[in-house]
Amino acid sequence: MDTPYPALLDDLKANTHVLAFDIFGTVVDWHGSIVREVQALYPSVDANAFALAWRAGYQPAMARVRSGELGWTRIDELHRLILDDLLPRFGLAHLSEAERVHLNRVWHRLDAWPDSVAGLLRLKKKFTICSLSNGNLGLLTNMAKRAGLPWDCILSAEVFRAYKPDPATYLGVAQTFDVQPHQVMLCAAHHDDLEGARACGLRTAYIERPLEFGASQPKDVSPQAGNDLHVRDIHALADALGC
Amino acid sequence: MDTPYPALLDDLKANTHVLAFDIFGTVVDWHGSIVREVQALYPSVDANAFALAWRAGYQPAMARVRSGELGWTRIDELHRLILDDLLPRFGLAHLSEAERVHLNRVWHRLDAWPDSVAGLLRLKKKFTICSLSNGNLGLLTNMAKRAGLPWDCILSAEVFRAYKPDPATYLGVAQTFDVQPHQVMLCAAHHDDLEGARACGLRTAYIERPLEFGASQPKDVSPQAGNDLHVRDIHALADALGC
Repeated sequence: MDTPYPALLDDLKANTHVLAFDIFGTVVDWHGSIVREVQALYPSVDANAFALAWRAGYQPAMARVRSGELGWTRIDELHRLILDDLLPRFGLAHLSEAERVHLNRVWHRLDAWPDSVAGLLRLKKKFTICSLSNGNLGLLTNMAKRAGLPWDCILSAEVFRAYKPDPATYLGVAQTFDVQPHQVMLCAAHHDDLEGARACGLRTAYIERPLEFGASQPKDVSPQAGNDLHVRDIHALADALGC
Repeated sequence: MDTPYPALLDDLKANTHVLAFDIFGTVVDWHGSIVREVQALYPSVDANAFALAWRAGYQPAMARVRSGELGWTRIDELHRLILDDLLPRFGLAHLSEAERVHLNRVWHRLDAWPDSVAGLLRLKKKFTICSLSNGNLGLLTNMAKRAGLPWDCILSAEVFRAYKPDPATYLGVAQTFDVQPHQVMLCAAHHDDLEGARACGLRTAYIERPLEFGASQPKDVSPQAGNDLHVRDIHALADALGC
C-alpha cells in the first residue's frame, strides 16, 4: 500500500468505530467459486464465460429495481432472472427447476479470499465489522456460516430497501450503530461503491482484488485519489489500522 | 422438560432449519444486569424497583408505536423516553445528558444467562440461529459482541419495521431465509410471543427463566398447552434437538 500520512492513520484508528465490507469480489471470490461449481456440474460449458455473463447481468438487474420498473426484488430473485436468460445461451435450457434452484444458490456458497477470515478476525477485536452488500440477508447468512465469516452484524440492501450506491445504504450503517458517517469506513474492491460512500461522509478503504474477474481478465488496481486507504488485502487493512 | 412424543421430536429435528430467539429475558438477564449497574452507579436507589419500573414501561411504549401515535421508533429511543420519566421518581432527576446516555446503554450491556453462549454454540452446529427481538440492530450487535452470543444473523423488529407480536416479524424470519413458517422455531420465555409465532405457523419452544424478574418475583414457568417444546434452558433445548 501507499503509506498514508501518520496523522491520517492516527485519526482513522481513533475515530473509526465500524468497518462495513462490500462482499462480492471484496470478501469472497465469486468468479472462482462459480467457475469451480459450473465446471464440476456441467463440464462442457465455458465456465469462465458463464460466470462473467451471470455477473454482467447484475448491475442492469438492480437498475430495473432502482428505476422502479421492478418493485423491491432481492438479489436471489435477480440472480434467477439473469440465470434463466443465460441458460439457453450456454446449452443449458434443459435444466429442471430443481437444478436451476440449486445452481442459483451458488451465490450462497462462494468461497472467501484466502486472507478474509483471518483478516476479519483481527479487525473484529478492535472494530465492529459488518457486511454492507446488495446481497440479501439469507444469502449473506448462508455464505457467512459456510465460509466462517465472523461478522458482528450482517447488513444488506435488504435492510434499507435500497441498493448501493443509494445514500440510504451508507448512511443506514451509521444510523444503525448510532455513530457519525465519518466513524464508518466502507471497505470495498470497487471505486464506484467507495465513491458513493465518500459522498455520504464515510471513510473509505480500497482493497485490491486483481483476480476478481479471473486470471484471464486481471483488473487495474492502481490507486485512485480520494480513498483514505489503499491496501492489498484484509490482512494489510488490519496492519494499517493497528490490529 | 416434559418428554414430547418421539415422532414430534423426529419431525422437529428433520424439518426445523432456523431457530429464532427472543432476547430480553430469554437469552440475557435484563433484570440482574440492570440491578448490578444501578447498584454500582447509584447505591442509594432501589435497583430492583428501578429495573422493574423501566421494563414495565416497555410494552406501553411499543403500544404507542403500534397504534401510530408515534412513528417508527427504535427501542433505544423508547428506553430513553421511559428513563427520562423514571429518573425523578428515583431521586435521579439531576442526571446529566451524558449520564443518561450512558445509563440508557445498559441495555446494550446485558449479561447472558449462564447457559446461553454454550447452548447456542451447540445449536449453531445444526441450525441457523438468529435473534428475533424488538431490540434494535445496534443494541443487539453491541450486546452480542460483548456477551459472545454467536448469532448467524441478527434479526430485529427494526428490519421488519414492526414490533412483535406483529405477524410481519415472525413471517419475516421465514421469508428472510426462504423457508416455510413451520421450518422456523421461535424460542422464547414469554407465552404471548410464542402464541404470536404459533398463529403464523412457526414451531415454538418455551424456555423457563424463573428469575427473569429477580429472586423477589419468581415467574410461574409451568407448561402451557400449544408449545412444541418446553425446556429448562438452552442446553436442554440442544439436548431435545439432538445437538
